[in-house]
Amino acid sequence: MLTINTARLLDDLAALAHIGATPDGGVSRPALSAADVEGRAWFHLRVESDGLEFRQDGAGNLSAVLPCDNPSAKTLLFGSHLDTVLNGGRYDGALGTLAALESLRAIRDAGLKLPVHLEAISFTDEEGEVVGLLGSQAIAGRLTPEMLEQPRGGRDKLEAGMQRLGLTPQSILSARRDPQTLAAFVELHIEQGARLEESGMDIGVVTAIVGIRSFWLRFVGQAAHAGTMPMPRRADALWGAAAFVESARSRVIADFSPGVMNCGLISARPGAFNIVPGEVRLALEFRHASDQQLDEMESVLLGQARRSASDFHLALEIEPAGSVSPAPLDERVIIAIETAAQVCGLRHTRLLSFAGHDTQAMSAITPSAMLFVPSVGGISHNPREFTQPRDVVNGANVLLNTVLELAGAF
Amino acid sequence: MLTINTARLLDDLAALAHIGATPDGGVSRPALSAADVEGRAWFHLRVESDGLEFRQDGAGNLSAVLPCDNPSAKTLLFGSHLDTVLNGGRYDGALGTLAALESLRAIRDAGLKLPVHLEAISFTDEEGEVVGLLGSQAIAGRLTPEMLEQPRGGRDKLEAGMQRLGLTPQSILSARRDPQTLAAFVELHIEQGARLEESGMDIGVVTAIVGIRSFWLRFVGQAAHAGTMPMPRRADALWGAAAFVESARSRVIADFSPGVMNCGLISARPGAFNIVPGEVRLALEFRHASDQQLDEMESVLLGQARRSASDFHLALEIEPAGSVSPAPLDERVIIAIETAAQVCGLRHTRLLSFAGHDTQAMSAITPSAMLFVPSVGGISHNPREFTQPRDVVNGANVLLNTVLELAGAF
Repeated sequence: MLTINTARLLDDLAALAHIGATPDGGVSRPALSAADVEGRAWFHLRVESDGLEFRQDGAGNLSAVLPCDNPSAKTLLFGSHLDTVLNGGRYDGALGTLAALESLRAIRDAGLKLPVHLEAISFTDEEGEVVGLLGSQAIAGRLTPEMLEQPRGGRDKLEAGMQRLGLTPQSILSARRDPQTLAAFVELHIEQGARLEESGMDIGVVTAIVGIRSFWLRFVGQAAHAGTMPMPRRADALWGAAAFVESARSRVIADFSPGVMNCGLISARPGAFNIVPGEVRLALEFRHASDQQLDEMESVLLGQARRSASDFHLALEIEPAGSVSPAPLDERVIIAIETAAQVCGLRHTRLLSFAGHDTQAMSAITPSAMLFVPSVGGISHNPREFTQPRDVVNGANVLLNTVLELAGAF
Repeated sequence: MLTINTARLLDDLAALAHIGATPDGGVSRPALSAADVEGRAWFHLRVESDGLEFRQDGAGNLSAVLPCDNPSAKTLLFGSHLDTVLNGGRYDGALGTLAALESLRAIRDAGLKLPVHLEAISFTDEEGEVVGLLGSQAIAGRLTPEMLEQPRGGRDKLEAGMQRLGLTPQSILSARRDPQTLAAFVELHIEQGARLEESGMDIGVVTAIVGIRSFWLRFVGQAAHAGTMPMPRRADALWGAAAFVESARSRVIADFSPGVMNCGLISARPGAFNIVPGEVRLALEFRHASDQQLDEMESVLLGQARRSASDFHLALEIEPAGSVSPAPLDERVIIAIETAAQVCGLRHTRLLSFAGHDTQAMSAITPSAMLFVPSVGGISHNPREFTQPRDVVNGANVLLNTVLELAGAF
């Protein structure tokens, strides 16, 4: 059985964690930021000093390539992303990207000749600080010019980021690949949940990724003097937003579990101690496993927002802020991962992914699946995110052996 | 009966409204901002071109002075403020300041010789964008160095503003005046409520100003991935903050009316669609007419905040952000205002002020009271704030005649 070089992988993980490091041990390397540019430069240097071929496409996706002797062979893709959320952790994205690079090095070092081109890839802007799944959707041909017009992170951030990376909307859209040239895609990632840890499993084999819908809700009332306007006559936008958060939380827990919702951003205007808020902007996101369940959640949650607004004499503006469809994954790739886990002597189980991943976009154009390793305490998007070194190595070895399984299969 | 020059006052009001004007007809002239500096320059020029003596003290308070022939006479002060809240109205502060200036001009034009120095004053930073009642508290000797260390608008804004105006903490504290040199203080202001309008009264005579207490509430939970962290296991800081807003609103309406509360500022961190908010910062302010009622509100509201935090597995940090004591006003000044209103043939009523005013600080060192004129619809701190020209003129004439009443009385 072929295995990765443990020290080389752990060294790479430690080195990358320094880029965008926060004082509390976390990492802030949001997509297209200066820290992201630094992380990309580090990866580029790493690939070239490993003696591998480096590529960057029009969407800023970075790859290390080990070409097949047959130039017309298909490409087997595997990887993840280098960007992080603000003050996130050291493993989300980084593990899958660096384990892919290490798998490539292990195969090159072993002198194996495979019937496919191998490409370890880091996708641009997975987390959604700018667009979300930007690089993988571009490759999958699922990105539209409209999505670049109204990115969820704001147009200014996208413009500044594209300039920083030398990208243009045209170059991003040109990153689309012909599905005929691809063999399959596989991604290693941390679970970002506690199911594997709680069940004592080593490897999670993902059978589907939940869909995500995002909206900006704008509650609009009437700014007023916070002393002289009697409370019963106010149209306080925060009262409506607070009532919505309360009711949405309890309804989703009661009726949509294991579906989830989140309000992660809120602001009040004009914004002063002594002014009744005339406007509150609230970010709403929810996830579930099927389009039908998502439709039902959307109807219930937006209905609750309308009711909370009307209860407090407010207007409500609803602005869609992105949507990712649920993605069932490919049974043959799933079985390849299970076979590799068997080869490595590891306990594995099938599960759903409640986080969005680049695999979701890639599954639209090529047979795809992904594998999880445990996250301690299920903590993620947080400086305390941690995966045990043995699980890092287990995940990388299963990825490597999955690549070997898949290489001849498509 | 002496009256003001109506056209001169209305022209001044219109001219001042251009400075910091917002596209929707409002005014943004927050204290110590560039727009405030522009408003101050306009006032300075106005005073000097009127042939009056201009003064600026160490706290940036601006005055037009009409000296008495007797240099050791006391000073009768009257005025308001030129700063506004963000996107506020054209009358709050501006009316009282410009009516004071006009009263001075009317007395000068009439050639009256009074036994007091007359001083029409504009106080610095009434609204609290930086400190709140900064100029009047400085004059009253109620400002402490500590209040300048932790201003509610933030230390950076105060530093930048002091630099813009050429002030220092030392100069501000030196603006304190000897109460023995003061005869009395009176302030004209718009009501910022609808009681006068609803009862068909021309003039409100304020008998007391409510106290205000402000706090920053910081709800602290645990940032987490908004997909993979099951909802029942989250410590979502926004859930606690929303529950607090809900419960505080209904409790104050039920048990503390006509006392009021407001949450005018809110922010969530880290702040992204797909991250459970680990921290929410919420501004809380409440007002009532006596210290005892304020103590009771504080105990109930902070208790509710602690309960909301603990219900959602959050920590709560409470940071006081300012406090103004309730101020009973001086019966002799109140009667002088009522007498002046009689002289002008206007209907008047006594009432409480639910907004804080510079009169609150001045009442600590000299006999003080204030008068209100109606606000259309009670709207204030809003671009739609409006007072009918006849009420503007009524208020200025009552102010002028109150000054004449008071001039011989102290």
